[in-house]
Amino acid sequence: MNSRRVAVLFCAVVLVFAGVRAGLAKPAAEDASAFAAADAQILSEVRDHSEVMQNSEYLGDAIGPRLTGSPQLKQANDWTAVKFREYGLTNVHLEPWTIAHSWTRGTAHARIVSPTEHPLTIASAGWAPGTAGIVRGSVAYVDIKTDEDFEKYRGKLKGAIVIAQEPASLSPPKPDEPFSEVNRPMQTPPPLKGQPAAPSPFAVMMAVARKRTEFYKQEGVAVVLRDSNKPHGLLNMTGIGGEQFNIGAIPTAFITGEGYRMLYRMQKHGPVQVEIEMTNSFSDKPVEVYNTVAEIKGSEKSDEVVILGAHLDSWDLGTGSTDNGTGSMAVLEAARVLAKLNLKPKRTIRFILFSGEEEGLCGSVKYVEAHKDELEKISGVLVHDTGTGRVLTLALHDNYQDREIVD
Amino acid sequence: MNSRRVAVLFCAVVLVFAGVRAGLAKPAAEDASAFAAADAQILSEVRDHSEVMQNSEYLGDAIGPRLTGSPQLKQANDWTAVKFREYGLTNVHLEPWTIAHSWTRGTAHARIVSPTEHPLTIASAGWAPGTAGIVRGSVAYVDIKTDEDFEKYRGKLKGAIVIAQEPASLSPPKPDEPFSEVNRPMQTPPPLKGQPAAPSPFAVMMAVARKRTEFYKQEGVAVVLRDSNKPHGLLNMTGIGGEQFNIGAIPTAFITGEGYRMLYRMQKHGPVQVEIEMTNSFSDKPVEVYNTVAEIKGSEKSDEVVILGAHLDSWDLGTGSTDNGTGSMAVLEAARVLAKLNLKPKRTIRFILFSGEEEGLCGSVKYVEAHKDELEKISGVLVHDTGTGRVLTLALHDNYQDREIVD
Repeated sequence: MNSRRVAVLFCAVVLVFAGVRAGLAKPAAEDASAFAAADAQILSEVRDHSEVMQNSEYLGDAIGPRLTGSPQLKQANDWTAVKFREYGLTNVHLEPWTIAHSWTRGTAHARIVSPTEHPLTIASAGWAPGTAGIVRGSVAYVDIKTDEDFEKYRGKLKGAIVIAQEPASLSPPKPDEPFSEVNRPMQTPPPLKGQPAAPSPFAVMMAVARKRTEFYKQEGVAVVLRDSNKPHGLLNMTGIGGEQFNIGAIPTAFITGEGYRMLYRMQKHGPVQVEIEMTNSFSDKPVEVYNTVAEIKGSEKSDEVVILGAHLDSWDLGTGSTDNGTGSMAVLEAARVLAKLNLKPKRTIRFILFSGEEEGLCGSVKYVEAHKDELEKISGVLVHDTGTGRVLTLALHDNYQDREIVD
Repeated sequence: MNSRRVAVLFCAVVLVFAGVRAGLAKPAAEDASAFAAADAQILSEVRDHSEVMQNSEYLGDAIGPRLTGSPQLKQANDWTAVKFREYGLTNVHLEPWTIAHSWTRGTAHARIVSPTEHPLTIASAGWAPGTAGIVRGSVAYVDIKTDEDFEKYRGKLKGAIVIAQEPASLSPPKPDEPFSEVNRPMQTPPPLKGQPAAPSPFAVMMAVARKRTEFYKQEGVAVVLRDSNKPHGLLNMTGIGGEQFNIGAIPTAFITGEGYRMLYRMQKHGPVQVEIEMTNSFSDKPVEVYNTVAEIKGSEKSDEVVILGAHLDSWDLGTGSTDNGTGSMAVLEAARVLAKLNLKPKRTIRFILFSGEEEGLCGSVKYVEAHKDELEKISGVLVHDTGTGRVLTLALHDNYQDREIVD
């Protein structure tokens, strides 16, 4: 799930089974039993012949994590296309789009070397450049909250290992905050017609971050270490190349919450020297990447399309099983079940496994751009990206006009 | 805390404050107010002038993990001796004993290389030898429960990467089982006089483990990977050199619960090749190690001794802050407070920070051996090794005769 909560560009959100029903017949009283029968068939097929677990195991274990631009994602694109064909879908193909640079993770090692020695567990942020061999620098805690704060650090960060956030307690683990300031705006209605949209706190935060990065670059910061902010030595993961898949400005790595707090504590008592080596590599030219697409052709209104999607790409510290193997394999299973049961939907159901989601929904944006002439014929879109557990709510992603349909 | 729950060899367990009281005066009604006044002084000093946090931070951050035989433990021995002196204790010294080999952790890297690639997070078990460079072998799941089971694997494990336990679910995390079969026996009373003791389940388990290790050695197993059996990618830690601090028979490493389960799942579908490199080193001859000892001399019965102890050594994947920095710093704080308040105990209070605990209570065993002539004069012993949180119970460690004192 991409940490940037921007609006999906599609025009409507409906339930997939509403989509199937829309294809089957008009929702009228006399059709209730036909819908119930189809529902029962679908649920029975999923219950008795599910291939979700074996497909998830294959995706996670045999293919593994799937960075956009990596051989593993291409392998997953090819494998899901094979599965779609095997399940009897039509028009199965990979739709290409292009990224500026693919990124290949190398090694990342760090340790405190003075005033004592401690190993540190770090992982390069996605699209972060490596260091120039082993670099050694002093830890600098940079507390920039306003424009004036920049001046306090000017001329002092050359070769520094920067940490830039006062750590919160890791213990007990903090509950998730899905409605924090950064996330809340995407749940608010759009501005009234004729009124300017309020600046998104996320956009404000990103603007500050860009300014800070620019400052670090000018000052000659060696490495930025970001707090993973999780207990149990867990790491975090996002990219710094952004939607353009560019090479990041400064070697940047995530460090465990415990390691971050140790650096923060120690630098308060005096100079702390850290040694870091990160080796990552980039493609030297743009790389073609793909969305996997497959269809069940509509029996009557085949030019009208209901889209069922999920993103197949992932970050690469785990196997990408929850984010978003679960959603991808649910989409694959829906395709299997609907094709097998031969329910003859009136409208075309199109299954899309997107890529580039983690960098800013890039694959779906590219898809919309490539299919902008078809937008009026898209009856509904459901994108599954909820991770583990039951799906209890549907996020509208700024499509407030569809609130009634979803309710 | 050593995973082997053997009996402490000391002859009695009493509360430390009972020890202080014993030194102050005979427990009689007229002394109640004197005791209460001393208690209030002690609690007030701890509340208002505690040095526990700064000492704990120094021990964990500035010294770090403290394997017995490591320079860090020697540093901690020296530093605690300095603190004891600074706090005004007497007879402060390091008591030496000897281990067969010290062990220095090197690097440990592992990854699945076929049928696909996955990095694996591992950590060498303590006193495990390294591999001969990078070794590559097939994962073999070895399910040996009885003597007959050995035959199933004979001749099949040459060069294998062995995993040897059916994994339990990591999710949700299992509650601790302090009264599991392995641990329960140490809480049971000793056998009746004249009757033989039942074999300890722990001893039975260790006998099977030794037999299995011998078998692996004969068969030419390359590496043993042990399930850390914790969620969130956490590792586990113990040693394989045992109480003798010997070099382990086979390169052995702990692997995250997630990595272990991936290997277990994948080997069911076909051959899994893993590449491992572990580099550890040993001292080429025995090494002198130390217990830190300090005293508050008794005013009347100075040859009678109340011991207050904790183990200063630790495993080395963390900083040894909870096991047993907490206990060690509590002992140091007790020394500080009792010395500062000058309460004049009748008996000598001896503070001992043991080493070699993690390998089987070795430092305390050596201490008892060296001081066996004094045993009759030891009035009480309290060893603090409970980790985090409040101390709510006292373990008797087979000293059932002292149950009434503790109750």
